[in-house]
Amino acid sequence: MEVYMDEKYMRRAIELAAKGVGKVSPNPLVGAVIVKDGKVIAEGYHAKYGALHAERDAFSKLRESAKGADMYVTLEPCCHYGKQPPCTQAIIENGIKNVYVGSDDPNELVAGKGIKQLKDAGINVVTGVLKPECDALNPVFFHYITHKTPYVVMKYAMTLDGKTACDNGESKWITSETARENVQYTRNALKGIMVGVGTVINDNPNLTCRIDGGVNPVRIICDSNLRTPKDCNIVRTAFEVPTIIATVSEDEKLIKFFEQQGIDVLKTAKQDNRVDLCDLMLKLGERKIDGLLLEGGGTLNMSALKAGIVNHIQAYIAPKIFGGSGIYNPVKGESVAVPSEAYICKNMNITHIGDDILIDCDI
Amino acid sequence: MEVYMDEKYMRRAIELAAKGVGKVSPNPLVGAVIVKDGKVIAEGYHAKYGALHAERDAFSKLRESAKGADMYVTLEPCCHYGKQPPCTQAIIENGIKNVYVGSDDPNELVAGKGIKQLKDAGINVVTGVLKPECDALNPVFFHYITHKTPYVVMKYAMTLDGKTACDNGESKWITSETARENVQYTRNALKGIMVGVGTVINDNPNLTCRIDGGVNPVRIICDSNLRTPKDCNIVRTAFEVPTIIATVSEDEKLIKFFEQQGIDVLKTAKQDNRVDLCDLMLKLGERKIDGLLLEGGGTLNMSALKAGIVNHIQAYIAPKIFGGSGIYNPVKGESVAVPSEAYICKNMNITHIGDDILIDCDI
Repeated sequence: MEVYMDEKYMRRAIELAAKGVGKVSPNPLVGAVIVKDGKVIAEGYHAKYGALHAERDAFSKLRESAKGADMYVTLEPCCHYGKQPPCTQAIIENGIKNVYVGSDDPNELVAGKGIKQLKDAGINVVTGVLKPECDALNPVFFHYITHKTPYVVMKYAMTLDGKTACDNGESKWITSETARENVQYTRNALKGIMVGVGTVINDNPNLTCRIDGGVNPVRIICDSNLRTPKDCNIVRTAFEVPTIIATVSEDEKLIKFFEQQGIDVLKTAKQDNRVDLCDLMLKLGERKIDGLLLEGGGTLNMSALKAGIVNHIQAYIAPKIFGGSGIYNPVKGESVAVPSEAYICKNMNITHIGDDILIDCDI
Repeated sequence: MEVYMDEKYMRRAIELAAKGVGKVSPNPLVGAVIVKDGKVIAEGYHAKYGALHAERDAFSKLRESAKGADMYVTLEPCCHYGKQPPCTQAIIENGIKNVYVGSDDPNELVAGKGIKQLKDAGINVVTGVLKPECDALNPVFFHYITHKTPYVVMKYAMTLDGKTACDNGESKWITSETARENVQYTRNALKGIMVGVGTVINDNPNLTCRIDGGVNPVRIICDSNLRTPKDCNIVRTAFEVPTIIATVSEDEKLIKFFEQQGIDVLKTAKQDNRVDLCDLMLKLGERKIDGLLLEGGGTLNMSALKAGIVNHIQAYIAPKIFGGSGIYNPVKGESVAVPSEAYICKNMNITHIGDDILIDCDI
């Protein structure tokens, strides 16, 4: 059998998939392209949670028969009834001849079953097409579906000499406007955002997503002893933007106050009399928070690393030197005892963003 | 007139020039290629201080006449009698037809005169060929010849969270072996290396160049109060490796002791009762130290930035997180008062070195 496969169509499917960023959670981003006689005859993607899957979205755009055509799809087509009927059925019904698949289904119980259904129907299936690029679309989904806890991205910005503020606490601004805008896209992409109560007290942030059409993340304040100021911006806007305070406090009066402001006060297990971050992640997972942007500060960052909940780091580095005592730095607490015990960063990737650089890595 | 110029020959001349790294100080690195009928007929470079200039080195390799040939040379040919007779004369005598020049002569008094001599002799001269690449060969030379002080490269290594050691001072190692080896090449390339006395007391380094055929830099300890341990490695090897202690101490007994160990004790002007770094740079310049690697620590780094003597930063960043108080960080002292007063880094360039990254920038 002669098969003509062209990766450019999978690249297009990846582009399409990315259009769903911030809207499909906790589903994966998926794109699909239908090609006949060397021409794209339909494209589709999963646009938002509950909407058509990418394959069915593409079929809905057809203006001619897809009989004998090829389909490029970034993730193994589903074969079970969920919010939507199985995509494998639509692929078979439409008479697709070759299916090119990027990522495997991360759910080990169903992985390969969609492929098998297609093959049993006489369709030629090629898997692993641009797999690394396709996998890179869905680190959050892959993590969440296997661990049931959010994929945690620790983000911080520092100078080239490792400072997150001047010695007097001044930190506006470390990075350029372009880099700060880029953070807004990350806020849009992840379901939740978490800070320590110290950040709330010092900076009084809103933690909303400031891009057009962006989605506000669920705001989570890690606040062991309920020190969140009653009149801070986050509390004042809690009826508009979903907000969680994670605590081990038993001050029922305070808890009731925050609840009356529209805040979900989430009691966690204790770890050294503070919020147990592992327990918190499980509880956030139950609330369908599949991805979390951890926006520091240094003390919470170190606790998160120690608890083993961090999956990815985004370190913005500004091309400037502050000098100073080092008191304001991105990962505080008690250091590791020796360099060989350091937390190791893998798959480092560097992007220039405006004047700054962004170091992305897994941990 | 038909002129055929090919940048690939200038690229080769740049490669040749780089062979002199560490050996030509305080002269510039220069490479030259002679091309006839589309074929390289001779190549040359300035191999060490006092040896033939690149142009004459190339002529010495000729096995046929260069009459009518082209010459590619990374720096404007000299036109004055120094250690060597002027290269312009050799170019004219050999009947070169076209000369392609990269960098201008940085000495404004002579700049353009070599070019004029060639043109007056009827030679076609094209200047500015791959000028940025050619200029990049000689930042040290260009700086030294105009300022008479060393070009200072501040080098440090830190973790991705800005630490230069664990909270207990353990710092072996931050970066990978590959990165540490790379530093040896920088030590070889620069005439001097400077540390603060704190580094000598804490680490007892040798500060030698550990690569085959490498040249040891002149070691300079910045030691305002002569606290250098009498039996440290640097003192013990001062008869073998040139060593300077810069001080404002007037303890003649101690000074005499260090001098008897073969050390050049250099008294500088005072700045807040400490070594005045600007004065020190002038005095090192007088000693023909045209380039200096500043290997920290944090306190000396900040003083150097404040004194305005730093030209370039090499920040190695290791893909690991230590966490900690921040007491060990690359640029200490008192921080700038607000972010807008930060020292700004320009022309940032990033290289992957082993597992680490190296951020190079001008300041």
